[in-house]
Amino acid sequence: MNKYAVFHRPESSYAYAVQSDRLKIVLRLAATDKIDAVELLYNNKYDFTKKRFISPMRRQASDGIFAYYASEISLPDARFAYIFKITEEGKVYYYSEEGLSEKYEFDLAYYTFFQFPFINASDVMSVVEWAHDAVFYQIFIDRFARGDYGKDDSYINTPWNGEIDRHSFTGGDLDGITSKLSYLSDMGVTALYLTPIFLSETNHKYNVIDYTQVDPHFGDSEKLKRLLDSAHERNMKVVIDTVFNHCDAKHTFFRDVSKRGRESKYYDWFFIDGDRPDPAQGNYARFADCKYMPKWNTNNPEVRRYLIDIALGYLRLGFDGLRLDVADEISHEMWRQLRREVKREFPNALLIGEIWHLSEHWLRGDQFDGVMNYKLQKILCDYFGAALIKAESAADRMNALLFANTSQANAMALNFLDNHDTPRFLRVSGGNTDKLVCALLAMVIFPGMPCVFYGTELPLDGAGDPDCRKPFDWTFQNQSEEYKQNFRAILGLKKQAALAGVNAEISAEKGILKIIREADGECLTAYFNTSGKAKTVNAEGEILFAFNYKNNTVLNNGTVVVKNKKGKI
Amino acid sequence: MNKYAVFHRPESSYAYAVQSDRLKIVLRLAATDKIDAVELLYNNKYDFTKKRFISPMRRQASDGIFAYYASEISLPDARFAYIFKITEEGKVYYYSEEGLSEKYEFDLAYYTFFQFPFINASDVMSVVEWAHDAVFYQIFIDRFARGDYGKDDSYINTPWNGEIDRHSFTGGDLDGITSKLSYLSDMGVTALYLTPIFLSETNHKYNVIDYTQVDPHFGDSEKLKRLLDSAHERNMKVVIDTVFNHCDAKHTFFRDVSKRGRESKYYDWFFIDGDRPDPAQGNYARFADCKYMPKWNTNNPEVRRYLIDIALGYLRLGFDGLRLDVADEISHEMWRQLRREVKREFPNALLIGEIWHLSEHWLRGDQFDGVMNYKLQKILCDYFGAALIKAESAADRMNALLFANTSQANAMALNFLDNHDTPRFLRVSGGNTDKLVCALLAMVIFPGMPCVFYGTELPLDGAGDPDCRKPFDWTFQNQSEEYKQNFRAILGLKKQAALAGVNAEISAEKGILKIIREADGECLTAYFNTSGKAKTVNAEGEILFAFNYKNNTVLNNGTVVVKNKKGKI
Repeated sequence: MNKYAVFHRPESSYAYAVQSDRLKIVLRLAATDKIDAVELLYNNKYDFTKKRFISPMRRQASDGIFAYYASEISLPDARFAYIFKITEEGKVYYYSEEGLSEKYEFDLAYYTFFQFPFINASDVMSVVEWAHDAVFYQIFIDRFARGDYGKDDSYINTPWNGEIDRHSFTGGDLDGITSKLSYLSDMGVTALYLTPIFLSETNHKYNVIDYTQVDPHFGDSEKLKRLLDSAHERNMKVVIDTVFNHCDAKHTFFRDVSKRGRESKYYDWFFIDGDRPDPAQGNYARFADCKYMPKWNTNNPEVRRYLIDIALGYLRLGFDGLRLDVADEISHEMWRQLRREVKREFPNALLIGEIWHLSEHWLRGDQFDGVMNYKLQKILCDYFGAALIKAESAADRMNALLFANTSQANAMALNFLDNHDTPRFLRVSGGNTDKLVCALLAMVIFPGMPCVFYGTELPLDGAGDPDCRKPFDWTFQNQSEEYKQNFRAILGLKKQAALAGVNAEISAEKGILKIIREADGECLTAYFNTSGKAKTVNAEGEILFAFNYKNNTVLNNGTVVVKNKKGKI
Repeated sequence: MNKYAVFHRPESSYAYAVQSDRLKIVLRLAATDKIDAVELLYNNKYDFTKKRFISPMRRQASDGIFAYYASEISLPDARFAYIFKITEEGKVYYYSEEGLSEKYEFDLAYYTFFQFPFINASDVMSVVEWAHDAVFYQIFIDRFARGDYGKDDSYINTPWNGEIDRHSFTGGDLDGITSKLSYLSDMGVTALYLTPIFLSETNHKYNVIDYTQVDPHFGDSEKLKRLLDSAHERNMKVVIDTVFNHCDAKHTFFRDVSKRGRESKYYDWFFIDGDRPDPAQGNYARFADCKYMPKWNTNNPEVRRYLIDIALGYLRLGFDGLRLDVADEISHEMWRQLRREVKREFPNALLIGEIWHLSEHWLRGDQFDGVMNYKLQKILCDYFGAALIKAESAADRMNALLFANTSQANAMALNFLDNHDTPRFLRVSGGNTDKLVCALLAMVIFPGMPCVFYGTELPLDGAGDPDCRKPFDWTFQNQSEEYKQNFRAILGLKKQAALAGVNAEISAEKGILKIIREADGECLTAYFNTSGKAKTVNAEGEILFAFNYKNNTVLNNGTVVVKNKKGKI
């Protein structure tokens, strides 16, 4: 037994309630250990010394270094005590809060067992109802579609098919989105993620001057209502990008501080070093190094009240969730309060944080439902796009990602290949749409909520900002029928019952990445062959989707999704 | 490099703010790795790709399997990105969110560095002001001292010097405590931890019938006020045991449910399986298997409101903190709300949870300040008391304990050798008071707040409940002058400036356990020789405390505490 590899942590992604009467327990061991069996010995904590139930733990995944063993357990009395019994080549080990040992004194267990003291329903994270089969489409509003031709369009400085730069305005608006809802719905989209729409002088509107006024470039409150109503009529959800890390320096409150300095009642609403903010000195906290984006001080309860009221206002308008910008630089206290107040009034409102890094601290059920899944994006780009890693490494990293968080947080991760802050996937893949098809498929099959960036269906190409924000090409002149059909078929897969579950089994063999999803007795397996060689795997079942990538074959198909029956994974 | 051992987790006890501009970062490696250097490469996250600062990480501790390297860093712009650079036998490794690698692409770092995105002051856990030098004394009220001889004492069923059982009442009360405050203060006690005092028919009063009425066995609200005022006059703090997991079945609300069943407005205040609670069936959640202690449903916001108002009421009465009974079986949501409301009104109120097990989930700054330190108690009992483990193992386990939580939570851990729920330490040590002296000393030197159980100064002996709850012997007939002096000297050490810090360096060599504490340029080292053999260590400085244990010698003393100057630890 590799004693360095053994790891478990109570009340974490290694031990959490999946329902109010059901616990998931994970143990990490070295992948190379020659394990005969891993057993979870458990009972309610008051009876554990006398008697234990045994739950065999299955090796569910490996990340190349570690193997993850998991089990789910229930008890009528949900006050759990547990330890692990590990058998390696006939030799028995126990693992408890005191570490690894060859003997375990059950009489003294009260001091040394792991525990999940009580499952309290209010601490159990639940998956937002509509998240299970949501297919998101992210819209950068100025570039998606123009619908309002009666507005004052003197701000438009670039023709729809012109060259864009960071300061381009091309005229996209809310009416444009409303006019394309049927198009989106027909394509299989069930939820929109809109970049910011409130008063702001930039094309991206991440620097908000007034959180309550729809920007006149995009429309007004009536047009917004029409968009929300039309979306809801089609059973589409709408999530709005909400920017609470900072505002625009022209926001009334920051202007007040700029004018009155310490006399302003808003002085403590920002982080100011000195008597008053001075853009020349840059003596105030801000987003990145943007002096026109002063940072809100969410340590101040008044600021939290102000911003959370805005968030509640958005949900009362009819938005179905919030995508919270630069979420990781804002206080945890703010997010806890926001979640409490939002979920009390809107239990099914979705809360997605923009966090590019390890996010466990935000995903314990008290802050966000999910995060923008940058970790998955990087794997998909490295594997399918830039071919920097092989199938085995992709599987390893996918497994590490899945075991870093609870299955609920995984189910509500927003999976994407690219967005307004990254190069388009097609740029990463060197213009190869076959790679894009594979990556899209993996993104849809992977646990979480797939989200395609507007124009991916064409597909649009583009380097980083601003090139990734090109206007949508409504002539569809570069869209091939084959790609279009594949794109739609892939989005359509999300309706498969097998994808509604939270677990996945991911492995790679002989250069083929294999993702198995299972739920409600339905099973779906996707095979990805990116090895550059023909491969055959033993897969039976109904072929739901098949795609020839570089003419390599798996069952005469490069990449396939197969629906079959099997036992619980 | 042992790749299985490398571990770091952002925003955890491995990365946390110690002040609003200062971060502590910990990296775990295998203790056996032949490390030349560990360096923390860091900068603000927006500049990290271009330039990094380097902070050498010092090996601060080992737990026998792992070594812990730590460093503290500050930046004017507190948005930290960092990775680790590890040199082993001349070979360089990098450790980032993507794992261990021999090369690191700084250009792509934005995806892979570890981050602490922003230190928000409201998320920084601070140590309660008076906790730094607090010396606690735990009083089980019925057994400590009787002061009120005018009360109706017909409930007393056992003479003060009689044999006690689980149902004994011996007459101790609040007036008794008030009358002994000078005694306690003279002994070096600065804070009291009182077991419950509110209306209850048992001697322990952990089953509360009325949370607002002082139990008449113990006194009334006036006598309580006198106790609190008298304590505060002596600069003593008083922490009250607060029982929110359950109440007594005679509590008005549970009686109402028992009578009206589902018609009762309190039906959802408990966990009832069926129309009404039935003690014969036991169809309701309760503490352990005690049918007379029904469990509160703190998932219900009304219950939280009710209990938190009680907690606030206690603090408004003048209590300085709450010791929260069976804290781990109550919802995290309850504790977050309680902390918010308590700290808003009483920033220096101390919140201690009763948790016998790994407690990280409660100690991240949003729930408790500290927990009852059962983990330390077990080490001290195993090492000094029952001699089950050697100095090396004690040091290993102490280090594992310290690195499992933040230094703030360590500083507010309530350290104890025994309490009303465990055998007396003297029983564990087989009646050996020398061992008790050593253990007391270690408890006081260890980071945290020492807490002695009433009667330890005699010392009282006793097996588990009820034997550990014997009445105090005010004749002092078994108290030796030497033990008394040692006891007082040990408590007095807590005033040493060196103990006001949060860090400790703990190691063992040649069978001698060594604990170094340092703060404000003062340093204090304690050597414990329990090897059974004479040992000499190279220790210079002023001897603050020396104790001959089994005539073994360390600098001609068995156990010594030395005050000396040294650099920051």
